[in-house]
Amino acid sequence: MSVVRGNAVVGQAGGPTAVINQSLVGIIEESHKHSHIDRLLGARHGVRGIINEQFYDLDRQPTNMLDLVARTPAAALGATRDKPDEAYCEQIFTVFRKLDVRYFFYIGGNDSAQTAAIVNRISRDANYELRVFHVPKTIDNDLLVTDHCPGYGSAAKFVASAFIGDDLDNRALQGVKINILMGRNAGFLTASSILARRRLDDGPHLVYLPERPFDMDQFVKDVTAVNERFGRCVVAVSEGIVDAEHKLWSQKIHEMVKSATPSYDPHGNVEISAGAGMLADYLASTVRSRCKIKRVRADTFGYLQRSFPGIYSEVDAWEARLVGQMAVSYSLQSEDHDGSVALVRLPGTTYAVGTKLIGLKEVAPDEPPFTKVVPDEYINKEGNNVHNSFREYVGPLVGDLPKPGWLEQIG
Amino acid sequence: MSVVRGNAVVGQAGGPTAVINQSLVGIIEESHKHSHIDRLLGARHGVRGIINEQFYDLDRQPTNMLDLVARTPAAALGATRDKPDEAYCEQIFTVFRKLDVRYFFYIGGNDSAQTAAIVNRISRDANYELRVFHVPKTIDNDLLVTDHCPGYGSAAKFVASAFIGDDLDNRALQGVKINILMGRNAGFLTASSILARRRLDDGPHLVYLPERPFDMDQFVKDVTAVNERFGRCVVAVSEGIVDAEHKLWSQKIHEMVKSATPSYDPHGNVEISAGAGMLADYLASTVRSRCKIKRVRADTFGYLQRSFPGIYSEVDAWEARLVGQMAVSYSLQSEDHDGSVALVRLPGTTYAVGTKLIGLKEVAPDEPPFTKVVPDEYINKEGNNVHNSFREYVGPLVGDLPKPGWLEQIG
Repeated sequence: MSVVRGNAVVGQAGGPTAVINQSLVGIIEESHKHSHIDRLLGARHGVRGIINEQFYDLDRQPTNMLDLVARTPAAALGATRDKPDEAYCEQIFTVFRKLDVRYFFYIGGNDSAQTAAIVNRISRDANYELRVFHVPKTIDNDLLVTDHCPGYGSAAKFVASAFIGDDLDNRALQGVKINILMGRNAGFLTASSILARRRLDDGPHLVYLPERPFDMDQFVKDVTAVNERFGRCVVAVSEGIVDAEHKLWSQKIHEMVKSATPSYDPHGNVEISAGAGMLADYLASTVRSRCKIKRVRADTFGYLQRSFPGIYSEVDAWEARLVGQMAVSYSLQSEDHDGSVALVRLPGTTYAVGTKLIGLKEVAPDEPPFTKVVPDEYINKEGNNVHNSFREYVGPLVGDLPKPGWLEQIG
Repeated sequence: MSVVRGNAVVGQAGGPTAVINQSLVGIIEESHKHSHIDRLLGARHGVRGIINEQFYDLDRQPTNMLDLVARTPAAALGATRDKPDEAYCEQIFTVFRKLDVRYFFYIGGNDSAQTAAIVNRISRDANYELRVFHVPKTIDNDLLVTDHCPGYGSAAKFVASAFIGDDLDNRALQGVKINILMGRNAGFLTASSILARRRLDDGPHLVYLPERPFDMDQFVKDVTAVNERFGRCVVAVSEGIVDAEHKLWSQKIHEMVKSATPSYDPHGNVEISAGAGMLADYLASTVRSRCKIKRVRADTFGYLQRSFPGIYSEVDAWEARLVGQMAVSYSLQSEDHDGSVALVRLPGTTYAVGTKLIGLKEVAPDEPPFTKVVPDEYINKEGNNVHNSFREYVGPLVGDLPKPGWLEQIG
C-alpha cells in the first residue's frame, strides 16, 4: 500500500448533535483496524485544541466508555465556534507537521469543511503529505450535496415527538400554541414537525419556514382560520423567519424593545438581545390581541433539540457512525483523495444509503449557495405549511415515533 | 355492602402531565371490578363537559387502547381551566342527579379538590348520596399533605435528563446557559435539575427558586464567580422568581418593555405579554452585558416538561395508576368517606409508598397556606442553590436517568 503512515487528529466543531459522538467513535474504532494511523489524537475544543496542543489520547479509551460516549449527546472532545482564517490554519499546519500528523478528520458543518480545505491547501503548498477528511454533522440539515446530514434525523425525532405531546396537550386545554424551532436559514428541522400528524386534525396546523417571507397580517389570518375550524391551533415557527425584505423577525422585535430597557435598568447598560424567547412571546401576544383568542402560549424548544439524552434516531446514529468509519476507510485509498463523506440515498422503494467521497470544495464552495434550503416542492403555495410529500424524505431518517393513544367516541 | 349503587363520572382538570392518563385508566379498570358502579362516564374537558353533558363512554373502550392511553401524556378526556363557583357547582350537581351519578372522581390540583368539596357540600345539603374523590396530579408538586404529587416525578425526570444533555452541550461550547423552568409558586421542578449532577463540575451550577427573592446584582455576581471557576456556567431558574417585594420578575420585565411595542406595531394594539421567553432573553442579555461574557444562551423548557411522550418515571406512572385505583377502592368503604388520595412515604431506608384518604379540605383549605413550597432545609443560605439532601427526596420519584459517557484524560 502506498498510503503514508503517521499520526491522526480528529476534532469536533460547531453546535453539537445527539449523534456527533457516534462519528467520533466510528473514527476511533476504524483507525485501530489499520496500521497507517499510529496515534489518534483528539483535539480538545476543535481547532483551538490543535493550536494549543491540547489532545485526548484516543488509543487508550476503554471500549465500554467509548460505547457509552457514542450514545451520549454533545461533543465529547469539546467543540468550538472559532472560524480559522489563513493565519490560524497556518498554525494548525505547523502543529501537524511538528507532531507528524498525516490524517485530519474534522467533524462539523460547512465552516469546518472550509477550514479543512484551507489546511489541505497549505499542506500541499508545503509538499507535506496530509490527508484531510470532513465528516458532516448538523441538525440544520443544510449541507450541500449530501442527501441529508447526520444529526438531523435525531433532532427531527425530538421535534416530531415533542409536537405529538404538545398537540395532545393543546387538544386537552385548547387555544393556540406556538413553538419556535431551531434553524436560522433552512427550515428542515421546523418542517420535520409534520411527522407528528396522524389524525386529520392533528397539529402542527401551520408551519412557517425561513424559506418564505413571514407576514404578520397573514399569520393572524391563518391562526384565526385554523382556530375557527378546529377550536385550537398548534404552530411551528422557525427562529429564522424573515419579513419580505429578508430581515429577521427576531431582529425586528429586538429593535422594537431595545430602547425601553436601558432606561429601566439602574446600570443603564442592559438591553434585551434578539432572542427566540422574545419572538415566541411577541407572536403569542400578537395572536392574543389581534385574533382575540384568550389562551395563547409559546415555547422555544432551544438546545433540547440537539442535546436531549436518549432521544435519537437509530438510523441517524448508525449513519453518523458510518460516516466516521468511512472517513478512515477512504483515507486508505491510494489515490490522493481528500474530501467530505456524503450520504447517498439509493434509488428504490425502501430506504437505503451509501456513502461517497466528495471534494471539500463541493461542501464548502467559494461561491453561493453555501448551504441548502428546503426545496420549493415541499412548501405549500401560501407558505404556511409543508406538504405531506416531505414525510417521504424525512420519515426514514427519523424512524419510529411514540404512538399516542386516545379514547374512542362511542355511541 | 351498604354502598350506594349508581353511575360514576371521572374528569381531568388543569395542566396535563405525562401520567395523568394512568390515573384515568386506574379508575376505569378498577371500576369494572366492582358492582357499585353501573356506568362510568368520562367528562369531556372536565367540569365543562359535565354541565354540557358531553361524556365519553368509558365502559366500552378497548383494553389495548386503554393500555396505550395510560402511557400517553396529556389529558385524554380533555381538561379545563374553568374554576367553578357555587352556581357552576349547582349545575354540576343538577346533571349528576339527573344522570343518577353517585360517584365523582376528579383528577387535578388543589382547584379541582376545591370544586370537589363544593359539589360534595351541595349534594349533602340536598340529601343526595354522592361520593366525591379527588385524585391528585400536578407537575408543580405543591399539593398539601401528600408526600409528593403524581406527575411531578415524570416532569422532574424530563428536567434532570434535559440538564444532563444541556450541561454536556455547555461543556462542549462553554459560556453561560440559562434554562427557565415551570413552577409559578413552588420550586420543586426547578430543584429537580440538581439530579443532573454527577461530576463535581457538572451543572446546574446555580439554581434559583421562587421561594427566595431573586436579586439581579447577586445573580450577576454568582454567574461571574462560577464562570471564573469552571470557565462556564449552567443556571436553572424558575419562571416564578420574584424580587424582594415579591413581585414577579417576568412581570417587571414586561412592564419595562410594554411601552415600546404599541408605538411600533401598525395596529397599535399589540404589546408583548409577560412571558418566560422574555425572562430568558432578559437574563441572558444581563449576563452578556454585565458579566462581559460573550457566549450566553437561554431557553425556556415550557410545556415539554409535562407533555414529552415516552419520557416518564416508572415510579410516577405506577403511583399515578395506584391513586386512581385507590380512589375507586376507597369508594367501596361503607363509612361516609369522601376525600383526596394522598401518597405516604413509608419510613425505612428504601423507598416505598402507601396511600391514605384525607379530607378534601385538607388539600383545599379555606385558609392559607393553600399549597406547599420547597422546605427551607433544601435551599442554601445564599438562595442560589439546592442542597444535595434534596436528592433523597426527589431521587426515588424519578428513578433511572440517562448515563452519559465521557473521554478520559490519560497521561
